[in-house]
Amino acid sequence: MTRRNFHSDNEAGVAPEILAALARANDGTARSYGDDAITKRLRARFCEIFETELELFPVVTGTAANALAVAQLTPPYGAVYCHAEAHLNTDECGAPELYSGGAKLIGLEGAHAKIDPAVLQHTLRHAGYLDDHECKACTLSVSQATEHGAAYSAAELAQLTRIARGYGLRVHMDGARFANALVHLGATPAELTWKSGIDLLSFGATKNGAMMAEALLVFDSALAVELGRRRKRAGHLLSKMRFVSAQLEAYLDGGLWLRLARHANAAAQAIAAGFEGVAGAELLHPVQGNEAFLRLSPAVAEGLKAAGFGFNRWPRTDDVYRFVAAFDTPSSAVEDLVQAARRLAG
Amino acid sequence: MTRRNFHSDNEAGVAPEILAALARANDGTARSYGDDAITKRLRARFCEIFETELELFPVVTGTAANALAVAQLTPPYGAVYCHAEAHLNTDECGAPELYSGGAKLIGLEGAHAKIDPAVLQHTLRHAGYLDDHECKACTLSVSQATEHGAAYSAAELAQLTRIARGYGLRVHMDGARFANALVHLGATPAELTWKSGIDLLSFGATKNGAMMAEALLVFDSALAVELGRRRKRAGHLLSKMRFVSAQLEAYLDGGLWLRLARHANAAAQAIAAGFEGVAGAELLHPVQGNEAFLRLSPAVAEGLKAAGFGFNRWPRTDDVYRFVAAFDTPSSAVEDLVQAARRLAG
Amino acid sequence: MTRRNFHSDNEAGVAPEILAALARANDGTARSYGDDAITKRLRARFCEIFETELELFPVVTGTAANALAVAQLTPPYGAVYCHAEAHLNTDECGAPELYSGGAKLIGLEGAHAKIDPAVLQHTLRHAGYLDDHECKACTLSVSQATEHGAAYSAAELAQLTRIARGYGLRVHMDGARFANALVHLGATPAELTWKSGIDLLSFGATKNGAMMAEALLVFDSALAVELGRRRKRAGHLLSKMRFVSAQLEAYLDGGLWLRLARHANAAAQAIAAGFEGVAGAELLHPVQGNEAFLRLSPAVAEGLKAAGFGFNRWPRTDDVYRFVAAFDTPSSAVEDLVQAARRLAG
Amino acid sequence: MTRRNFHSDNEAGVAPEILAALARANDGTARSYGDDAITKRLRARFCEIFETELELFPVVTGTAANALAVAQLTPPYGAVYCHAEAHLNTDECGAPELYSGGAKLIGLEGAHAKIDPAVLQHTLRHAGYLDDHECKACTLSVSQATEHGAAYSAAELAQLTRIARGYGLRVHMDGARFANALVHLGATPAELTWKSGIDLLSFGATKNGAMMAEALLVFDSALAVELGRRRKRAGHLLSKMRFVSAQLEAYLDGGLWLRLARHANAAAQAIAAGFEGVAGAELLHPVQGNEAFLRLSPAVAEGLKAAGFGFNRWPRTDDVYRFVAAFDTPSSAVEDLVQAARRLAG
Repeated sequence: MTRRNFHSDNEAGVAPEILAALARANDGTARSYGDDAITKRLRARFCEIFETELELFPVVTGTAANALAVAQLTPPYGAVYCHAEAHLNTDECGAPELYSGGAKLIGLEGAHAKIDPAVLQHTLRHAGYLDDHECKACTLSVSQATEHGAAYSAAELAQLTRIARGYGLRVHMDGARFANALVHLGATPAELTWKSGIDLLSFGATKNGAMMAEALLVFDSALAVELGRRRKRAGHLLSKMRFVSAQLEAYLDGGLWLRLARHANAAAQAIAAGFEGVAGAELLHPVQGNEAFLRLSPAVAEGLKAAGFGFNRWPRTDDVYRFVAAFDTPSSAVEDLVQAARRLAG
Repeated sequence: MTRRNFHSDNEAGVAPEILAALARANDGTARSYGDDAITKRLRARFCEIFETELELFPVVTGTAANALAVAQLTPPYGAVYCHAEAHLNTDECGAPELYSGGAKLIGLEGAHAKIDPAVLQHTLRHAGYLDDHECKACTLSVSQATEHGAAYSAAELAQLTRIARGYGLRVHMDGARFANALVHLGATPAELTWKSGIDLLSFGATKNGAMMAEALLVFDSALAVELGRRRKRAGHLLSKMRFVSAQLEAYLDGGLWLRLARHANAAAQAIAAGFEGVAGAELLHPVQGNEAFLRLSPAVAEGLKAAGFGFNRWPRTDDVYRFVAAFDTPSSAVEDLVQAARRLAG
Repeated sequence: MTRRNFHSDNEAGVAPEILAALARANDGTARSYGDDAITKRLRARFCEIFETELELFPVVTGTAANALAVAQLTPPYGAVYCHAEAHLNTDECGAPELYSGGAKLIGLEGAHAKIDPAVLQHTLRHAGYLDDHECKACTLSVSQATEHGAAYSAAELAQLTRIARGYGLRVHMDGARFANALVHLGATPAELTWKSGIDLLSFGATKNGAMMAEALLVFDSALAVELGRRRKRAGHLLSKMRFVSAQLEAYLDGGLWLRLARHANAAAQAIAAGFEGVAGAELLHPVQGNEAFLRLSPAVAEGLKAAGFGFNRWPRTDDVYRFVAAFDTPSSAVEDLVQAARRLAG
Repeated sequence: MTRRNFHSDNEAGVAPEILAALARANDGTARSYGDDAITKRLRARFCEIFETELELFPVVTGTAANALAVAQLTPPYGAVYCHAEAHLNTDECGAPELYSGGAKLIGLEGAHAKIDPAVLQHTLRHAGYLDDHECKACTLSVSQATEHGAAYSAAELAQLTRIARGYGLRVHMDGARFANALVHLGATPAELTWKSGIDLLSFGATKNGAMMAEALLVFDSALAVELGRRRKRAGHLLSKMRFVSAQLEAYLDGGLWLRLARHANAAAQAIAAGFEGVAGAELLHPVQGNEAFLRLSPAVAEGLKAAGFGFNRWPRTDDVYRFVAAFDTPSSAVEDLVQAARRLAG
């Protein structure tokens, strides 16, 4: 049977180039805890790609990268503004709260899980009125691509970060699917991050073909002070770090990350296009990454499940479903899905 | 000049009966940390008034009582549902997050800062879908009276707690103004708490004439396990506890607390009634305690400020003002306020 | 029966001057949360007495003052060095750990619960060797008087703080019994604190005649940044703060605090002197405050208990007992105690 | 040049069998977050090897496994007893404190970093005396092998756990080098864990040939409740978990883990034996795993460094050095080291 798995890009495997890099990295001994040659090379490579000096902290989960970023930018008595649907807010079981020592996440609204600038402006204008009774507004976190599969343009990011910085906030980007947004927008990594006012980036790789590798990038070294100790006490200072860095190096090498993301995005576009003719199916968000969100009739949703297709109902909804394409989703899988849906919608 | 302070009931002083009790309590030595005769008597008195066995933890701030309650009911990976406007959520600078080790507060909507049962039902029905990725639904916290000065009837409380308990949650009541709600509703303490499904009550006294005295009441002793250690490590196990307990004893004695609350409520009613004829003034919430929330025109609001009246703009609004009456607000003060408002409104 | 309570100074009541001040403070309304006239006057008074500008944070327990100080000086990934017997380390059920978000307390040795400078030097010389794997050395905390009733001279303090500062640490003093040490040493408040390198002082009053009043004093305003929010989220921003400040004002007024401490110290000296002739009794630490630590034979210890004398066995020992004198311990009480002990030792 | 790295076993690479397993696991899609076939098989395999039902939580660092175990067994107001030299206490930058929300680690003494049963007994006998003022004695943590390279026999473990359980404590074992202790002792996994009173085991693999793979094993399922949520919020629920589990499966397969540990242990024995004839060298602890601790003269220590040998000075000492052998340390490397040392000692 052909592949029918659209549950999540994290159910895919590992790109062969990345697996090969692990074998190559297994050459003799190396200093542990990131003091190895591969990690050093990797930092230089990230500097090139992002066209700036930066501090690099490889980790193995996006939750760790996000929570470290939040803790680094937000004291325990601080507040973090993010979209109400942000992964940070809904899917990490309180990791930002744990790492920060109890900072408060405040969810904001906006279409397609993009924070509405007017909402942010209004919220921050009223923040601080209660002095010590209120958590201090410290951090803005945006997801790129968003949890609804949309992408912020550089201009949209700049607008949000300008508001946030006007109130003294620092800005984090959850880039679990950064590559997908990047290739969709056709912008440079620099344009979508520090040039748009982003201070820290959770740079995702696992969902796009790595095995277990993410990187927390810090564009202002003053914001990296003691981040190493925070990482250690969170249990994320890996002893054989070279094997995380090797994944990231291969991921970046020769633009592999961009190729993989383009493939996944194209598959998501094909899904969206394919469902256009399906009765009762409604595309809810623009497809600007590798995910398509569809409202489906029970007949179609249940029929697809029965036919063995894997996809998840979106939390807090009754009839919205997410289809995620991966770096290696075959076009035949998309075709099968679409044909099955059309048959069911009959 | 007569009193013009409607900022908050916590700007009032101390009822003479309570001050006198402090002097009486200063008789010789007593066991420290709550192992004294007054604290023991106080517990018995609370049992009588609430018509049940209960565990008593006197503290000195409502924030401490609330945060201890949340921490006791909610593991660090748990979620607390409360109204979006709850004091717990907006005015305690993250105390519940600190005490609980990073639990997540989730704000719900509802008119007059009362949680809408349909919203609670919908929210809990969808909770838990994400398994370990999501904070566990553990606790419901309701404020009585609410932050908008409204009161939940016993039936309304029972409806909310029935929903919550159906999903396995425990329920806390923030009763910073419990006395005010109680006398408004004409119900018994038992009816508004454990008989309506409340597990823990932050029983307020400071806002209603005490100096610094609140009590955390636990109606199910199984929920009090190790609460003493939590109180100690929060710095709220007072060595000379008898002087907190003496305040509470005097507060309860002979129904003083009810008399004081009735006085304050009547003054708030008089404020609301007095503003009825004021052009541009709009009463926003029913006055079911000692607070009146009014939308005012700039002319009236600024004029009253200029005339020396003290009252606060409500957070996150531009033109809503809160007037709070205290246990000792003179009727002349209310009359002065109303007359000044009428003059200003022309 | 005359008083037989030597359990702790916190079993004593309140000095009449302080009780009277509470009544005086109960005059009309006042701004809440410390924005009142008494608290402002109090800060000025502390500045005079300590001969320097300082920031004042009144609280109601020594545990709160200590834990706030630790949290303010120590990030979650930091280490606090204190004596192994420090109250902070053994008697606060992890309050410093809670407030700081999990900082590590490291107990050091030294006679009479005074930190041995050589031990401190050795410890700090080896600290930091493990880089990110090790909590960062941030804070030194000393108790004045110590938990064994001894006092550090200004020179001894300066020696410790010089070592600590040489390694970049900041220094906190737990002054739960600061007055007792001060009058014993005949030094000025300034000499025993900021002139000796102390950054933050937990200034105790409750054990020496106040009802519930301590003050966290910050000698360098840069170290007070956001301490207010930490206090709030710990539940220690009292709404009717004027009644804490009034206690402290009366405590300082006319040198009351010094008189009360002198009385208590003299009583402790009398206890120590009285036990000199008692067979099997051994004074274990110099009496430089209001406490005497005695090793007693079972016959004497049990006999005194049976005769109704109150005193506690010291934790982690089998036969060491602490006798604490209070600001109002009558000399007759000491005489009774000593005579009883002599009779029992026969 | 032949290998000269004795810094740490975590500077070694990955056993070829484990690398091969990663490639094999990369076969199509799999459920994420541990709901995959490999992880399920792995749990069954662990049950066989440990001869009992158990709950399995694969993670990627020993610090994460240890800190999760501590947090699971210890409430925030609890105390954890471990050896003063325990990795948990000295090398994890406060991870147990972070994960537990501020529990207190209490270091105990004992030769060779093994907890002395008499010290444990004495400590626990005195614990609890201060009631709520004291952190509650909850957890004992032992390291197997210890941080000084020694191993507890099953009888020694049983003695410690019997004491601990007598006071109501639960017991965790930090088994970062469990395999090394196991093969040294010639005991079964069951004998050294649950049969000796161990409740939770941090089962290490990374130091012994895995890439990044450890497992937290819970022998009593009641102790695993909500551990999944704790793991998630710590950022240790890996999406592509199958690649952690595959490492562990290969590690266990055909006794690979035991073969690798035997090799490392033999190399450590050879180091210890080789230094016997070296002037000024003193073996400080029995070699019961893969580490040798030696006091060296400056001439030898500096000479070996200058010759390119890698090994670390032990923290908090001036002249004690640790030599660690890995699963793949060649015998020629040991021979080179020993010959160099002999030459230098002349």
